[in-house]
Amino acid sequence: MIDAREFLRIKRDGGTHAPETIRAFVAEYLAKRVPDYQVSAWLMAAFLRGLDSTETDALTQSLLHSGRVFDWTSLGRASADKHSTGGVGDKLSLMIAPIVAACGVLVPMVSGRGLGHTGGTLDKLESIPGFRTTLSPEGMLAQLEALGVVLVGQGPDLAPADGLLYAMRDVTSTVEFEPFIVSSIVSKKIAEGARALVFDVKCGSGAFMKTREQARSLAQRLVATSRSLGASSEALITDMNWPLGQAVGNALEVREACATLRGGGPAETRALTLDLAAVMLRLAGAGTTDAEARTRAEEALDSGAAWELWLRLVEAQGGDPRALEDPSTLHPAPSVTPVLADRNGVLQSCDCFALGELVVSLGGGRRAKEDAIDPRVGLMVFGRPGQTVRRGETIAELHLAADDDGALARAAACFRIGDEGLAQSDLVLERIS
Amino acid sequence: MIDAREFLRIKRDGGTHAPETIRAFVAEYLAKRVPDYQVSAWLMAAFLRGLDSTETDALTQSLLHSGRVFDWTSLGRASADKHSTGGVGDKLSLMIAPIVAACGVLVPMVSGRGLGHTGGTLDKLESIPGFRTTLSPEGMLAQLEALGVVLVGQGPDLAPADGLLYAMRDVTSTVEFEPFIVSSIVSKKIAEGARALVFDVKCGSGAFMKTREQARSLAQRLVATSRSLGASSEALITDMNWPLGQAVGNALEVREACATLRGGGPAETRALTLDLAAVMLRLAGAGTTDAEARTRAEEALDSGAAWELWLRLVEAQGGDPRALEDPSTLHPAPSVTPVLADRNGVLQSCDCFALGELVVSLGGGRRAKEDAIDPRVGLMVFGRPGQTVRRGETIAELHLAADDDGALARAAACFRIGDEGLAQSDLVLERIS
Repeated sequence: MIDAREFLRIKRDGGTHAPETIRAFVAEYLAKRVPDYQVSAWLMAAFLRGLDSTETDALTQSLLHSGRVFDWTSLGRASADKHSTGGVGDKLSLMIAPIVAACGVLVPMVSGRGLGHTGGTLDKLESIPGFRTTLSPEGMLAQLEALGVVLVGQGPDLAPADGLLYAMRDVTSTVEFEPFIVSSIVSKKIAEGARALVFDVKCGSGAFMKTREQARSLAQRLVATSRSLGASSEALITDMNWPLGQAVGNALEVREACATLRGGGPAETRALTLDLAAVMLRLAGAGTTDAEARTRAEEALDSGAAWELWLRLVEAQGGDPRALEDPSTLHPAPSVTPVLADRNGVLQSCDCFALGELVVSLGGGRRAKEDAIDPRVGLMVFGRPGQTVRRGETIAELHLAADDDGALARAAACFRIGDEGLAQSDLVLERIS
Repeated sequence: MIDAREFLRIKRDGGTHAPETIRAFVAEYLAKRVPDYQVSAWLMAAFLRGLDSTETDALTQSLLHSGRVFDWTSLGRASADKHSTGGVGDKLSLMIAPIVAACGVLVPMVSGRGLGHTGGTLDKLESIPGFRTTLSPEGMLAQLEALGVVLVGQGPDLAPADGLLYAMRDVTSTVEFEPFIVSSIVSKKIAEGARALVFDVKCGSGAFMKTREQARSLAQRLVATSRSLGASSEALITDMNWPLGQAVGNALEVREACATLRGGGPAETRALTLDLAAVMLRLAGAGTTDAEARTRAEEALDSGAAWELWLRLVEAQGGDPRALEDPSTLHPAPSVTPVLADRNGVLQSCDCFALGELVVSLGGGRRAKEDAIDPRVGLMVFGRPGQTVRRGETIAELHLAADDDGALARAAACFRIGDEGLAQSDLVLERIS
């Protein structure tokens, strides 16, 4: 039995927990021998006093072992996964999973739903008619054996202590704390059985991490904690000051993913997809260099192998692959309105946070857990930063359930047009390896 | 409805609560619309980020108005009370209440039980056979009208939010925080209907406040918060590096209180009793100067009026006044063992904390709420700091349920005998007015 009061006192006074006391605290909480009110007080104390890397690793390990830990080594293949910290228009998981699996590496991907102003992979997948994001453990094993890839949500037996802690963090304003974010992400990713983890840490106006320093710190800690639990791991810090690709919104993003898997799609979407897939393949041992791994990923994409696998994956999880043959027929919005440049000039910046919030408020995301999502709504962003535009030119397109001048004005206000030229910059800002 | 998450976020980020939001938070908690786990997270955030004087006053007011607030003005007399922050051998309430009441000032005294290494007035009173520390509101009114004094515990309708918060603080290691201590003490004292409050803030090895700075800060805040709620208030900071008087332990302290009320007792006990009583009388308007008020208190003591009132009070609350006629017959201990000086020298210091803990461990206090107290056990401390002693001389006397060499050794170890002389110092270190 842990003395919860003493445990709280230590963190309150700025002390450091021994790893075994963190494990005991989490285990006793899961066993309902430590009540919510002591956990919530500890969350606040840790938030304000900090957790060092050893404590973060121990917390992650405790969450990991609170439930079932999958192990796919019986399938005799390397496994890999990637996790994005969340952005606007980030549909990369939909392409990366089949590309990497088409190269022979298992992708047991457990994803989440939209959070705040960002979208979620599960919500996007569910805009495909019939798609099921829950699979039994036996179903996961069978599909991994057959296709090498699953795209599912977190089941109730995967890191259940993380689910409990996350609910507590949500109601005690202790969500935005790096050690908690790291332990929550890494425990679930390790529990799903992936042994190589790539993190896409978003940075900028549309990301949770607004500064490069925050993003770098989070990336380093994600990588270090993953390694402490035996996974190989690297991270890319990528720019999120402009929506990723063109589509923002659930069905629109699935359409863009399909276009990209068929060899088209926006250049940035394709490039970052291949960058991340290459790191996954290299970490999983499929390609000794990034260049070799990238070549393999490109082949999987350009040969149509990834597209074929994607269709089989959709079908295996109950979705209707015919709905993707002509993606423009997937949940078309009744109202499509262009967003026009209001002056001549150069596209300078996009308030991605406001854009994400706009899509949520139009029904493309949730304010509360029980809200339904309208897969139709969203934006297509055609302009790119640094692009010269003329007054009246279409820079984006708003997809709505009904005409809405207020939404149009809000969308237009997200884009700033100025006079200065803008140097093109790479989406990948930094690599943490 | 208060947004509890936003309230938590403000304190988490070091912000200041508007008084009305504190009142709303406490009211919603009492109405069970804010759950324990949000309150406990807030307690920790406030502990680590601080509460300023305006926030402390608002919290105190919220606790005060969470229950019944007594008002004795219909009795047409001024009212006063004193509160000690807790020490070793502090039995002053037992004398002060009848002395001040004998001077015509109402004393509606609500006391507590022993906490940690310190004794509690209610526990001491209950060593008088039959004494009841609970009275109905009607019973309090009748006794105040008849005798001008009650000595009771906190009823369930007095500041109930304080009871709830205190229980939360206890299990979340957020007890030792000045704004919480102040709000808890002052809300109860104001709720009992006293309109003049004197605080005896103990300082030293036997007190909760170890340094003069801590004691001064607490004293200033107790006085300021009491005044913000309309009570006149002053504080004395008094030395607690040596047990107060001679007796430590429940029945032994009642014996010393009786001796003092009959004009005897240790000089320090008498002096500090009169000091505190004089401030109460002056604040209540009975005596324009401390000297005048002290003269009135001395008269009440030396005339026997306070002793007579004490016996009537004991009888009114169900106690047997005959048990106090010969106090040496009150719960005599089976084993009384002298504690001897182990060398020639000068008594330098006493580890009052260890002495208090010793008495608790012998059964004179509680480790858990449900523990029974043995009124017999304790110590008589005959030596005073600076006193010259010879090896083998009795410096204290241990009163035990049975012989116990271990306890004797622990008692002896509390006293340090050295070679240096020691200047006599006053018990009253500072006055906060």
